[in-house]
Amino acid sequence: MTMQLHCFGESGNAYKVALALELTGTDWRPVFVDFFNGGTRTPEFRALNEMGEVPVLVDGDTVLTQSGVILDYLSSKTGKLGGRSAAERREVLRWLFWDNHKLSTQAGTVRFLANFLPEAKRPEGVIPFLQGRLKASYTILDAHLAGRDWIVGDGPTIADLSCCGYLYYPEPFGFDRADWPHIDRWLDRIAALPGWKHPYELMPGNPSDRA
Amino acid sequence: MTMQLHCFGESGNAYKVALALELTGTDWRPVFVDFFNGGTRTPEFRALNEMGEVPVLVDGDTVLTQSGVILDYLSSKTGKLGGRSAAERREVLRWLFWDNHKLSTQAGTVRFLANFLPEAKRPEGVIPFLQGRLKASYTILDAHLAGRDWIVGDGPTIADLSCCGYLYYPEPFGFDRADWPHIDRWLDRIAALPGWKHPYELMPGNPSDRA
Repeated sequence: MTMQLHCFGESGNAYKVALALELTGTDWRPVFVDFFNGGTRTPEFRALNEMGEVPVLVDGDTVLTQSGVILDYLSSKTGKLGGRSAAERREVLRWLFWDNHKLSTQAGTVRFLANFLPEAKRPEGVIPFLQGRLKASYTILDAHLAGRDWIVGDGPTIADLSCCGYLYYPEPFGFDRADWPHIDRWLDRIAALPGWKHPYELMPGNPSDRA
Repeated sequence: MTMQLHCFGESGNAYKVALALELTGTDWRPVFVDFFNGGTRTPEFRALNEMGEVPVLVDGDTVLTQSGVILDYLSSKTGKLGGRSAAERREVLRWLFWDNHKLSTQAGTVRFLANFLPEAKRPEGVIPFLQGRLKASYTILDAHLAGRDWIVGDGPTIADLSCCGYLYYPEPFGFDRADWPHIDRWLDRIAALPGWKHPYELMPGNPSDRA
């Protein structure tokens, strides 16, 4: 049965899942959520996800939200990208939590504020503060990737797909690949995986729709 | 064997784990990390956790970090607080991710900025911005708890322990229980569990040490 992913192109959290669906060879289709016109605030969407966020994955009767949960579900179901032992799976989960706690949550917010909010509405001081916190996160990830190809073990896992969620987008938010050589090469490595696609190729909706 | 939890009293993320250790009846002891004097930045601590954060749980040869991973490990190991079916366990994981992504990460930051950073160093505009985001999170949690006693299923789980991590602290950061009646009663319910203790009773270090 074709899985449905409720998503929109600008969401790095949805991109993590779209990429996992693609790289595991899962049969899926995107369902566009019109976030910029209140699409996550409708009663219909809230009935699907009380948290009011994409991604939402529908697999028959199973409705899942939170990218970390969906990635874990897909790797369990397909036997791919999940790590090769209990210790590796715990390490994968560790980086999923770190990403949610320290990387993507701030990257998504600062990218939104810097690109998708009218300049007059941008809250004073918040962007540099979040960029400072992100710099600490890039430092940790870059150091971790020095001397290793993938975040966990010797092949790609959902930990890589989670942490890269916001790092391929073209809109500037203070992340410059040239500053982080190990992250830079790791992003090239992920982009070389068979089936890899850019977020705006994989999901409907992108900033040019609103230009 | 006695588990060791590297922690300090002010860390809500460490509190989640300390509370789980206590409520599952696990044999453990705290190891104080002197965060306010650079204790998470030393080479020794970084060797334990490259992410530079508490909590760190040491169980024999197993070293675990990220509160969500440790909570999952403890509930698996003890058979307690983890949910009663695969669907409940996924729902537990969903709230753990939501907490890391939307609740504790912001609550910890704003509480730190508002209480533990000298007023002159507080970045302009950041506290009200984060409080606005937190209000959206409290709204989601309060609505979820309307008409139910626990976040998942009909008993306490690690999802409850994760989401309550920063909500018992006395230092003001813009969370007032009176504004959120369902959260308020749920916090009373957790505090009535046999073995419950306040963060400053369970872990060494609290603001009066630095007064």
